[in-house]
Amino acid sequence: MISRMTEAEARTLLTAGRVGRLGCVYKDGPYVIPVNYAFDGDSIFVHSLPGRKLEALRANPRACLQVDEIDNPYHWQSAIAYGVFEELTDSNERAAASRLLLARFPNLTPVESVPVHDGQSSVSIFRIQIQEITGVAEKSPSGPGTPSITA
Amino acid sequence: MISRMTEAEARTLLTAGRVGRLGCVYKDGPYVIPVNYAFDGDSIFVHSLPGRKLEALRANPRACLQVDEIDNPYHWQSAIAYGVFEELTDSNERAAASRLLLARFPNLTPVESVPVHDGQSSVSIFRIQIQEITGVAEKSPSGPGTPSITA
Repeated sequence: MISRMTEAEARTLLTAGRVGRLGCVYKDGPYVIPVNYAFDGDSIFVHSLPGRKLEALRANPRACLQVDEIDNPYHWQSAIAYGVFEELTDSNERAAASRLLLARFPNLTPVESVPVHDGQSSVSIFRIQIQEITGVAEKSPSGPGTPSITA
Repeated sequence: MISRMTEAEARTLLTAGRVGRLGCVYKDGPYVIPVNYAFDGDSIFVHSLPGRKLEALRANPRACLQVDEIDNPYHWQSAIAYGVFEELTDSNERAAASRLLLARFPNLTPVESVPVHDGQSSVSIFRIQIQEITGVAEKSPSGPGTPSITA
């Protein structure tokens, strides 16, 4: 009852989503945090205050973003995009990513308005350049029937 | 506006949750999947069909489970439990874990009713023995104000 999504279906889910769970590797173990993101078809853009995920991603740039829609344990889909973290330092690239994020989240604080310390913004904007997108979905009659979202 | 949760608060969120995002390390990169789970205060129990997460966890037993409640980008909490994967092979342990999962998800297929091949159930039941629980929360007035769930 659980089937692979096509890449097109997984991309559609990723494009529609607003909250994803960003996975990274921190000191050889997994670390997962919810993030708001924007996806332009090639990269996922996130902006972030300093914290563990930036520390983790700077040390190991491999990242994934998992996005799902869960109606119930028997009706759900989940996509995952794998890619490489890259922090945006170029002011034009930062501005473009900010515009993308603000278009999706109009109430976000414009990143460049966050107080700047020592000439550098304390807010990082980064992208995950996507290398692979996959997904799985279950569409079962309401249970009992399958072991739920545990494949 | 983003603050650390106490361990008690993070435990409460973890206990109340039904869907979490399981993070593991697959071939040195991160892998994240949604799972239904039950938490008994010490371990998180999951049952699973064969797939990438089992392959990943058997190779590298470090795991985390991230659970959140997101009202909006300015009002959310997220807990993460870190621990070690252990597959349950003892029939008494499997039965106890099954009961815990079935109590939480009454419509789940009882694991032991899944067809058995070569004398072994094709469904794995595993636990993540929890070593650390942390969490962060944001309770801001509706934005603009903060950079959203990206700390």
